[in-house]
Amino acid sequence: MRILFLGDIVGRTGRDAVCAAVPTLRRDLDLDFVIACGENAAHGFGLSPKLCDQILGAGVDLITLGNHAWDQRDIIPYIGTQPRLLRPANFPPGTPGQGAALLTDGRGRRLLVVQVMGRLFMDPLDDPFAVVLREIAAAPLGGPPGRGADAILIDMHAEATSEKMAIAHHLDGQVSAVIGTHTHVPTADAQILPGGTAYQSDAGMCGDYDSVIGMVKQPATQRFVRKMPTDRLTPADGPATVCGVVVETDDASGLARSVTPVRLGGRLEATG
Amino acid sequence: MRILFLGDIVGRTGRDAVCAAVPTLRRDLDLDFVIACGENAAHGFGLSPKLCDQILGAGVDLITLGNHAWDQRDIIPYIGTQPRLLRPANFPPGTPGQGAALLTDGRGRRLLVVQVMGRLFMDPLDDPFAVVLREIAAAPLGGPPGRGADAILIDMHAEATSEKMAIAHHLDGQVSAVIGTHTHVPTADAQILPGGTAYQSDAGMCGDYDSVIGMVKQPATQRFVRKMPTDRLTPADGPATVCGVVVETDDASGLARSVTPVRLGGRLEATG
Amino acid sequence: MRILFLGDIVGRTGRDAVCAAVPTLRRDLDLDFVIACGENAAHGFGLSPKLCDQILGAGVDLITLGNHAWDQRDIIPYIGTQPRLLRPANFPPGTPGQGAALLTDGRGRRLLVVQVMGRLFMDPLDDPFAVVLREIAAAPLGGPPGRGADAILIDMHAEATSEKMAIAHHLDGQVSAVIGTHTHVPTADAQILPGGTAYQSDAGMCGDYDSVIGMVKQPATQRFVRKMPTDRLTPADGPATVCGVVVETDDASGLARSVTPVRLGGRLEATG
Amino acid sequence: MRILFLGDIVGRTGRDAVCAAVPTLRRDLDLDFVIACGENAAHGFGLSPKLCDQILGAGVDLITLGNHAWDQRDIIPYIGTQPRLLRPANFPPGTPGQGAALLTDGRGRRLLVVQVMGRLFMDPLDDPFAVVLREIAAAPLGGPPGRGADAILIDMHAEATSEKMAIAHHLDGQVSAVIGTHTHVPTADAQILPGGTAYQSDAGMCGDYDSVIGMVKQPATQRFVRKMPTDRLTPADGPATVCGVVVETDDASGLARSVTPVRLGGRLEATG
Ligand SMILES: [Fe+2]
Ligand SMILES: [Fe+2]
Ligand SMILES: [Fe+2]
Ligand SMILES: [Fe+2]
Ligand SMILES: [Fe+2]
Ligand SMILES: [Fe+2]
Ligand SMILES: [Fe+2]
Ligand SMILES: [Fe+2]
Repeated sequence: MRILFLGDIVGRTGRDAVCAAVPTLRRDLDLDFVIACGENAAHGFGLSPKLCDQILGAGVDLITLGNHAWDQRDIIPYIGTQPRLLRPANFPPGTPGQGAALLTDGRGRRLLVVQVMGRLFMDPLDDPFAVVLREIAAAPLGGPPGRGADAILIDMHAEATSEKMAIAHHLDGQVSAVIGTHTHVPTADAQILPGGTAYQSDAGMCGDYDSVIGMVKQPATQRFVRKMPTDRLTPADGPATVCGVVVETDDASGLARSVTPVRLGGRLEATG
Repeated sequence: MRILFLGDIVGRTGRDAVCAAVPTLRRDLDLDFVIACGENAAHGFGLSPKLCDQILGAGVDLITLGNHAWDQRDIIPYIGTQPRLLRPANFPPGTPGQGAALLTDGRGRRLLVVQVMGRLFMDPLDDPFAVVLREIAAAPLGGPPGRGADAILIDMHAEATSEKMAIAHHLDGQVSAVIGTHTHVPTADAQILPGGTAYQSDAGMCGDYDSVIGMVKQPATQRFVRKMPTDRLTPADGPATVCGVVVETDDASGLARSVTPVRLGGRLEATG
Repeated sequence: MRILFLGDIVGRTGRDAVCAAVPTLRRDLDLDFVIACGENAAHGFGLSPKLCDQILGAGVDLITLGNHAWDQRDIIPYIGTQPRLLRPANFPPGTPGQGAALLTDGRGRRLLVVQVMGRLFMDPLDDPFAVVLREIAAAPLGGPPGRGADAILIDMHAEATSEKMAIAHHLDGQVSAVIGTHTHVPTADAQILPGGTAYQSDAGMCGDYDSVIGMVKQPATQRFVRKMPTDRLTPADGPATVCGVVVETDDASGLARSVTPVRLGGRLEATG
Repeated sequence: MRILFLGDIVGRTGRDAVCAAVPTLRRDLDLDFVIACGENAAHGFGLSPKLCDQILGAGVDLITLGNHAWDQRDIIPYIGTQPRLLRPANFPPGTPGQGAALLTDGRGRRLLVVQVMGRLFMDPLDDPFAVVLREIAAAPLGGPPGRGADAILIDMHAEATSEKMAIAHHLDGQVSAVIGTHTHVPTADAQILPGGTAYQSDAGMCGDYDSVIGMVKQPATQRFVRKMPTDRLTPADGPATVCGVVVETDDASGLARSVTPVRLGGRLEATG
């Protein structure tokens, strides 16, 4: 199975670049599934139902969120109606929406996607190390037909590289891939861990890299320098780099055969 | 001028890989200067005088430290005697050692190196955005002969990508390069900013990537899972990947001509 | 029922003062139960089995811990054998020891004590707001005879006043008292909340207040000033102030009739 | 000299209680100066010029702010015109307004007031331990006539009790008093330190204590429980407790003769 996972889509430039690239990438990279983190798609803060539909309509199979999940309030009543939209699974019980979803391709192969959020330097949610095990137990790799998953992708939305690497080792051999999001910078540490799980600390954002993590650089920089309120941060609108990772899994074991960064357009050096 | 900057050296495997690689890299990459962050060289925690001498002896011109600067106590009396060793410049006045150094190559060209430490998700030191401007004012690019610098390299030892990108834009056009350290993961966002400053969010560690940021993975992972004390963390000792960035500067302007990641050995995909 | 709750015991001076005061206080204040937080009893860091026995032997009925629970490693195998010692209930499942205990007095009245730890500015544990509800559900106020509790005391070991006040309102009417620990400073906000629950943001430490939260002031202050390692922090050893709160509950409802601060000895102004 | 320092005024109920109480307190307590922290006066968030004028008009001599200094944007152009309004002195150079002020009473006695903000669990500003020394050097106790101060009051706006106690010891003997603000809970640790400086970890808020640090309790509590956005927090509007500290200083030495908590009205037990 070939899965493309795209990092945090930031603002209009990020959305436009993703929507333009996905149809081509699906074909050129022979993709079975495309997943993207959309927590910054709506002018940098959250995701609206309308933008969710637009991104799904462009060929993304599933969107994940993150700490910005609820920045757009109209996503709250919407998320329960949209099976292709996830928020972190370790929000407290009773939180609207879901943290895991099973996707099925045309050949009946099942991909389980789970998003969890880290806690180091972030809001304290339920334990992601425990929650992720519960979520994958519902459809484990190698489970009985119709009950297990053929591949499992974990979106670890977290700040600290230590927590990301730790959860990857925690899951190594039990999932196809652990890919990080949230820092808005792609890392160059793609590898297959000893147990067979693909890993990259961060997928990187889909947005304008002449910025401060996707936002217009002048006010974002002034916040560090002056410690005064600035204008509301808005997304930088230069050409976006589409950033992500392609994971190829073995259909028998569900483990990773390869993990390959993808960077396309904008200021960063393109891959392959 | 061609400068190699290597990220945090972690433990024996990191030291050995760096010491073995530097002579070759100096020649093959036609380097004028080699700088490395050594804050984790001593069994993961700090740097001892002996290891400092060993790394400098292997062909590194200057070592920077970071938040682990003082983990080995005997570095405290030593640092004032070693002009080729830096700690973050934004420690309070009166802190032993120095935060900036001017290096001169055989042709008389001067490289100013400054290390500052970020404050987001880290210990609150003096303002790195202000301190770094003071330090580069002492030897600015384009300064009068004998008073200015021909190139300036900033080691931004920080956790948050936002703070790293912000300080790079803050300095864009005034320094040759801003390269991040501390997260122990190389980023894939090398670029030359609009003003001519080379940037990469993190150089990545020189250490074993089958680990949690360089440390043996089992206890480091258990700390997240169990919230109990574990054995003291020790460096993983598998083959290290030497990670860094080569910056080529224009001798006239001091600005960057190119910025190129370097990854060599170990588990990560090698560059070029 | 009359319950004395004493805040964090710090070092020898705190232990000695508590052990000397408790027998007298039991009699003079007509106490049914005495509870104390012992997380700093062992030279400021944790609690050893021997000191646990000493404090219990002096007339304390139950000891709670906190973020310093495991600083003395020999408490780890011991805690499971000592029913009168609690660690925070919201440590992950599988953590040694227990987070709640039922005490019975000579007249058969049952006091449930629960300790939970806050997460704001602290290590992210399981959700204290959810865990505390589970713990009190096991022996609720007004429960059937032999299944409920006659009084419930919550030790909220937390940094932030907002989180402490929030959990008190969360539990108001369901427990007899919510008393905070951890900041090592007594607060002057004792009150009975509208639903009948007694509250004080922090009980204060039992230790020497000519100090930095109980520790010798010179090195503790230097850590803020110099940002360098100092000698290991040790407890200040001047006369201790015993700090706590007396809660009187109604035996029928289990709710609070009164909440009264206690301060005795040392530098702070004594109560009543 | 007799100085009343009042903690964070929260919302209308806090303002009204302070404005009503100050004239009486000035007379009954024979006060020379009244200082108050006003950072939450404007509906819980910041201070407007109009409310600043109202509070000063009621007999407060000087208002301090804190981390909420700029929540009301129209205070930014105003602060430079109002010598009786302080923001933390350790904001970066170039910040509008001032962090210290000299007040003179009818008898020509001079009181220096300085506000600094802590950094532990707060935004990283300039070093308060260094900045406060610079500010008091401008008008030291025992300085030459017309150059020194007859009393010095420090408002330490900070979260952590450790940082508050540390800065008090750092200044002990050099200032008349160090009184904390920001936690919105009065502490019961008033004392005169060995060097002669009065200290209390927190003055407490002037606001409604049937609340979460002054804000309506239901949404403030839900933020901890649900991890979802709630309605904007608004101040609780029940009767306020006016909370503060009276410091009496020796006119010869400038050091403290006494430090006495004041609590008046509302839910908390009244003093004296
Ligand atoms: Fe995020
Ligand atoms: Fe994001
Ligand atoms: Fe570091
Ligand atoms: Fe490091
Ligand atoms: Fe504690
Ligand atoms: Fe404690
Ligand atoms: Fe504040
Ligand atoms: Fe406040």
